[in-house]
Amino acid sequence: MPVPPSDESGRGERAFSTLMAVPAPAGTPPAAEAMLDFVFAQVWQRPGLSRRDRWFVALPCVAAADAEQPLREHVRAALVGGDLTIDEMREAVLHFAVYSGWPKASLFNMIVDEQWDRIHQERGEPVPPAKPLLPLTTPSDPEARLLVGEQAFRDVNCVPYIPVRDNPYSGAGILNFVFGEMWLRPGLGMKERRLITVACVAFQDAPYPILSHVYAALKSRDVSFDEMDELALHFGAYYGWPKASRLMQVIDEQKQRVTAEWA
Amino acid sequence: MPVPPSDESGRGERAFSTLMAVPAPAGTPPAAEAMLDFVFAQVWQRPGLSRRDRWFVALPCVAAADAEQPLREHVRAALVGGDLTIDEMREAVLHFAVYSGWPKASLFNMIVDEQWDRIHQERGEPVPPAKPLLPLTTPSDPEARLLVGEQAFRDVNCVPYIPVRDNPYSGAGILNFVFGEMWLRPGLGMKERRLITVACVAFQDAPYPILSHVYAALKSRDVSFDEMDELALHFGAYYGWPKASRLMQVIDEQKQRVTAEWA
Amino acid sequence: MPVPPSDESGRGERAFSTLMAVPAPAGTPPAAEAMLDFVFAQVWQRPGLSRRDRWFVALPCVAAADAEQPLREHVRAALVGGDLTIDEMREAVLHFAVYSGWPKASLFNMIVDEQWDRIHQERGEPVPPAKPLLPLTTPSDPEARLLVGEQAFRDVNCVPYIPVRDNPYSGAGILNFVFGEMWLRPGLGMKERRLITVACVAFQDAPYPILSHVYAALKSRDVSFDEMDELALHFGAYYGWPKASRLMQVIDEQKQRVTAEWA
Repeated sequence: MPVPPSDESGRGERAFSTLMAVPAPAGTPPAAEAMLDFVFAQVWQRPGLSRRDRWFVALPCVAAADAEQPLREHVRAALVGGDLTIDEMREAVLHFAVYSGWPKASLFNMIVDEQWDRIHQERGEPVPPAKPLLPLTTPSDPEARLLVGEQAFRDVNCVPYIPVRDNPYSGAGILNFVFGEMWLRPGLGMKERRLITVACVAFQDAPYPILSHVYAALKSRDVSFDEMDELALHFGAYYGWPKASRLMQVIDEQKQRVTAEWA
Repeated sequence: MPVPPSDESGRGERAFSTLMAVPAPAGTPPAAEAMLDFVFAQVWQRPGLSRRDRWFVALPCVAAADAEQPLREHVRAALVGGDLTIDEMREAVLHFAVYSGWPKASLFNMIVDEQWDRIHQERGEPVPPAKPLLPLTTPSDPEARLLVGEQAFRDVNCVPYIPVRDNPYSGAGILNFVFGEMWLRPGLGMKERRLITVACVAFQDAPYPILSHVYAALKSRDVSFDEMDELALHFGAYYGWPKASRLMQVIDEQKQRVTAEWA
Repeated sequence: MPVPPSDESGRGERAFSTLMAVPAPAGTPPAAEAMLDFVFAQVWQRPGLSRRDRWFVALPCVAAADAEQPLREHVRAALVGGDLTIDEMREAVLHFAVYSGWPKASLFNMIVDEQWDRIHQERGEPVPPAKPLLPLTTPSDPEARLLVGEQAFRDVNCVPYIPVRDNPYSGAGILNFVFGEMWLRPGLGMKERRLITVACVAFQDAPYPILSHVYAALKSRDVSFDEMDELALHFGAYYGWPKASRLMQVIDEQKQRVTAEWA
C-alpha cells in the first residue's frame, strides 16, 4: 500500500495550499493537522484517479456537507487551477441538484457565481456572458421526450428495462426530465457525470441507486475498476468512512457481477 | 399547553397502533417507549394541524431518514386510514424527489407500490390502473415552458423577480422543470406541496431555501401561523431538535416579515 | 503532531481487528487500507480522549450514516469490549433519536437488540431482562415537568434564559420532553450526553445548536478543551472533514468565548 509516511511536519498544510491556491488555515490544532495531512498530502496525491476527476467527487461531497467556507475554496481552486471550465462547473451544479435535491444545490450555485465574479475582478477582466440555455438539444414534444428518456435510461443504466410512465416519480420525473433531458445535456462528459452520480448516491445512501450507478459506471467502462477504488477512498476522505465502507462493499460486489457478465 | 401526563403505561403503544394500524413494536426498550409516547401519544394528537396535514410532514422526514421499516408503516397507514389517496401519495413522492434528490426517493416510490399492492391483495381486490402521465398540463415548447416557469416561480415564491435562464441550474432545472412543470402538476394542492417543501428544506438545511419557502407558505396564507408552529414541532419529533430549532428561528423571523408586509 | 508513520503494511487491519473484535475486511483494496490505517491505527489510538469516550462520538456518526454493517460491528464491539453497558447503549439510542430524529434511530435500536441477543446466544446465556421504564424520575404533572424542564434547560445550556412555553416546538417539545425528561434520565452521565450531542449537532449542521452545545460542553467543564479538539478529529474521521472543518471553527470561537468569561 503506497501510503507515504505522515510524520513530516507541515506536509498537510503545504499540500493544502498548493491545491487550494490559498494558505492552509493558521493555528490549526494538532487534530486538524492530522486530517489535512491525510486528505491533502495523501489522498489527493495518489495516482489512479486524475486531479481533474477528483474534483467531480470532492465538489459534490463538500456541497452536500453544507460546509460553506470549504465549498467556496474548492470551487475557486478548481476554476483557478483550470481543472474545470465554468460551463462544466455550472453543469455539475445541475447534475448535483438532481441527485441531492434543489435546496442543497442553491448555495453551490450561488458560490459558483460569486467565485467566478471574484476571479474576474481580481484579474481586472469583465465576466464573460453565460452560455445561452436555448435551444435545448432534447425534443420538446412530451411523447418524443419520453421515448428519448426511455432510451437514455437504458443506455445510462446499462439495463434492458425501463420504468413505468404512468407514475409521477418515474414518468414525469425520471423519464421526462432526469433521463429525457438532464443526462443528455452536452455540458459534461459521461465519465464526469458518473463520478458526480456515484458520489451523490454514496452520501444519499438509498439502498438501490448505489447498486445501479456503481454497476453502470463499471459496466460502461466509463470508470475503470481501479478508478472506482480510488473514488471510494476520495469519497471516504470527504464524507467519512462509514458511508465509504458501504460504497466499497457495493464496488466489490458490482466488480464481480460485471466481470462475470464480461466473461 | 395541553400536554397530557406521560406516566400512563402503554399509552405510546396504543397511540402508535391506532394511527399506524399495526401493533406497536414488541419488546421495545424503555428508552424507545419514552419516544413512542412522545411522538404518537402527544405530538400526533395535538390540535392545530390536521392528521391529514401531519402526514405531509412525517412522510418526507421518514423517507429522508432512510428508515425502511418506519417508511413502510407510514405509507401503509396513511393509505389504509384514507388520509391520502394513492394519487396524492405518488405525487408526494415526486415532490419529495425534487426537494431531496432522486436516489432518496427511489425507495419511497418502491414502498408506495409495494404497500398499495399489499393492501389490495389483503382485500382480495385487483390493483386499479395508475393515472396516465400524458397529456401533461404544462406547455411543451421550451420557450413557453420557461415563461410558465417564470410566472410559477413568482407565484409560488411570492417574489417579483425571477432567476436567470442562461444557467443550467436555474434555467434547465428550476425554471424549466421545477416550476415550469413539477409545481404545476394537478395531483396535489398548494398547501400539501408547501408542507412537503418546508419539511424538505428544513432537513436539507441549505441556508436560503428555508427562508424563502417558510416565507412563501406564510405569505400566501396556504399555511397559517399556528399551523406552521405545529409543523415545526411535528418536524422536530421526526427529524431531531437541532434542525427544528433552526426552522423555529426562521419561522419567527418570517412571521415578523409577513406581518410587517401585511400591515 | 504525534501522527505515527503510516507506511507499515497491515497496521490498519491490526488496529481494526483489535478494537472491533472481528477480522478486518478481507481483500481490502489499497485505497480502503489507507482509510483503515488512518481511522483505526491513527485516530482511535490517540491520547486526549479515552477509548470509552470515543464510542460516544463514533456510534452516533455511524448510526447517522445509515451504514448498517459498520453500525452492527460498532455496537457489538462497544458491548463486547465492555466499554459501554447495555443500559448505556440503549440510553445513547434515545439521546441520538432526540437529536437526529427517531426514524433514523429505529435501525440503531434494532441493531442494539439484535447484537445483544447474539452476544448472549454465543455465550449460551439467557438475555437478562431490560431495565423497567417506570417509574420515571421526572414529575408527571405538566406544570411541574415544565418547571423542571426550564431549570434543566438553563443548567444544560449554561444560559440564564429559557424559551417560551406557549409554542409547540419549545413548549411541548424542548421544555416538556427534551429537557423536562430526556436529559434528566439517569442512564447516562453528562459527559457522555455532551459527546453524543456535539457529534449530532455537528453532522446535522444547523447553524445555532452547534454553537450552543459546543459552548455548554466547554463552559460546564464536562469536556475539556483538549478533549474537544480530539472529538473534532474523531468526528472528522467518521463524518468527513468538510463538516469537521465547521466544527473546528466553532470550537475555536467558543474556546475564546469561554476563556474570556472565565477570565
